[in-house]
Amino acid sequence: MEQHPSYLMGFDLGGTKMLCGVLNSSYEIVSTTKKKTGDASRSEETFERIVACVQAALDDAGVAASEVVALGVAAPGPIDLRTGTLLETPNLGFQQFPLAERLSREVGIDVRVENDVNAGLYGEYVKGAAGRYRHVLGLFPGTGVGGAIVIDGKLYRGAQGGAGEIGHMIMQLDGRLCGCGQYGCLEAMVSRGAMAREAALLVTNGKAPTIAEKAGTDVSKMRAGVFKKAIDAGDTEVARLVDRAADILGIGMANCVNIFNPEAIVVGGGLVEKLGSSYLDRAAASMRSHAMSHLAAGVEIIAATLGDDAAVVGAAAVAHEHVRESRGGGR
Amino acid sequence: MEQHPSYLMGFDLGGTKMLCGVLNSSYEIVSTTKKKTGDASRSEETFERIVACVQAALDDAGVAASEVVALGVAAPGPIDLRTGTLLETPNLGFQQFPLAERLSREVGIDVRVENDVNAGLYGEYVKGAAGRYRHVLGLFPGTGVGGAIVIDGKLYRGAQGGAGEIGHMIMQLDGRLCGCGQYGCLEAMVSRGAMAREAALLVTNGKAPTIAEKAGTDVSKMRAGVFKKAIDAGDTEVARLVDRAADILGIGMANCVNIFNPEAIVVGGGLVEKLGSSYLDRAAASMRSHAMSHLAAGVEIIAATLGDDAAVVGAAAVAHEHVRESRGGGR
Repeated sequence: MEQHPSYLMGFDLGGTKMLCGVLNSSYEIVSTTKKKTGDASRSEETFERIVACVQAALDDAGVAASEVVALGVAAPGPIDLRTGTLLETPNLGFQQFPLAERLSREVGIDVRVENDVNAGLYGEYVKGAAGRYRHVLGLFPGTGVGGAIVIDGKLYRGAQGGAGEIGHMIMQLDGRLCGCGQYGCLEAMVSRGAMAREAALLVTNGKAPTIAEKAGTDVSKMRAGVFKKAIDAGDTEVARLVDRAADILGIGMANCVNIFNPEAIVVGGGLVEKLGSSYLDRAAASMRSHAMSHLAAGVEIIAATLGDDAAVVGAAAVAHEHVRESRGGGR
Repeated sequence: MEQHPSYLMGFDLGGTKMLCGVLNSSYEIVSTTKKKTGDASRSEETFERIVACVQAALDDAGVAASEVVALGVAAPGPIDLRTGTLLETPNLGFQQFPLAERLSREVGIDVRVENDVNAGLYGEYVKGAAGRYRHVLGLFPGTGVGGAIVIDGKLYRGAQGGAGEIGHMIMQLDGRLCGCGQYGCLEAMVSRGAMAREAALLVTNGKAPTIAEKAGTDVSKMRAGVFKKAIDAGDTEVARLVDRAADILGIGMANCVNIFNPEAIVVGGGLVEKLGSSYLDRAAASMRSHAMSHLAAGVEIIAATLGDDAAVVGAAAVAHEHVRESRGGGR
């Protein structure tokens, strides 16, 4: 008698690394396999590495493809979620690339593609910090500021799958330039990238000695850990800059609280991981003093707990649910 | 054989007037009855007027209470939607007032209370401008800026029923004072009230002759129609002020588009009704130049069509659905 397939896989396709996990049916990770994405400007090269990483993950876990119910891939947007096509992902070389179809054919597993930030929040929902709540937002300040929305226990994707761009909420009409081309977005004020660009001025002016030592004026080297070291070393101007970013992040949270009346906001990403509760508590205090008080009273601000595994777990869960729904098995 | 009750009622409880409608089961209005809310600082007086208005509406329509399936009341928030209790409505004299329970007992009809802005959008959804869409936002710039959300065909109310405060999204960190106590909310920049406070300066400086003639420096008299007359009379400084408000309203819409990826935003209220398409088209153009282009492409900006009837229709529909759901009849 044939054994019922009982494993799931989740794949996080990042710009610098790819992470593939094999999970049991309770969404517990059995093993993970990590590879560098490398300097992949051509889609076929990137695709070959994805296939190799999936196969290595199966080998590492000692699991056969036939034992896997579904494989979820967390990828940067924009994505046609229905077909699993990556519409435009310049740093991975993808343009209108039918990833779900190609990968499914190659590895012999049902594949579902999900936006990486959505997958990250959903991972925290099914297995991490957010499981107790039905209405949860996710904010992930890092290079940019990712946003995602769970409403009534389900990912909210909007009409074309593009919802959740909370980082591109314009919060200063004459504000700083954002990577999206607009001015004054939340991301342009509070992301690690935005903080780095301001810190570069401090370095130039001799006011950020620790950052000068670790990164010089190279903003791409000013990672979250560098800010943490500067604060620990007593660089007061850097501490002020980080505090201000936390305050503004809290105002962005307040806007979300007023709009969504959520039960919780999960905050993840490198800044929270490195800067810890002093950063998150400051943002939460700012939220509470800027949101409508009856709505602020009902919301928890919580740190993500799954770290790099969040998107792997979330993508696996999304793929699993899709398979169950398309087989008519319900939720 | 007893006839099955086949009418619905909707009641819009405003600060200056109350409007009660009797509807057939297709949510078509059979008749409406309007009364002044009056100077009601005591809850019992206001409540008596509400009861009298409901009974007058039944008389006007020639319908008996026993023929009415449900009565929906659209009221200003905050509201405990579960029990239909008005938590705090200072200008109506209500504080922790169990409106649904009291009114139901008095008139002998099942009563459901809904937030008035939610009811307005839901009316446009079930019978007005927004019926073709599953994911729709409502923005109602007037004295303030009301906001409401329909997701997957259902009103989204959030964890405690307080969602949709889009007007209190902070969009200028050092912006103008808002009625909510914060600075820089969308409402503080684009509401009729905000425009009036700026117009008062123009009047003082002799730059708004038409407004000076119609309202002097009394901001409460600067209704939407007064702005319309000033623009029509060629008062260029007033036209600039209104254009700027439309531009910023469009940036607020852009934020909503980036967050929700909706199919449509319905815009209603006095400013849209009086200023018409020149105002709405300008706001829509601003939205399109500030939202992410792939999301802006998929969204329609449409004017509300039901006017004052929207909240009556929406409240009736909400009450009807609640009765059907609680009787297990499905949606």
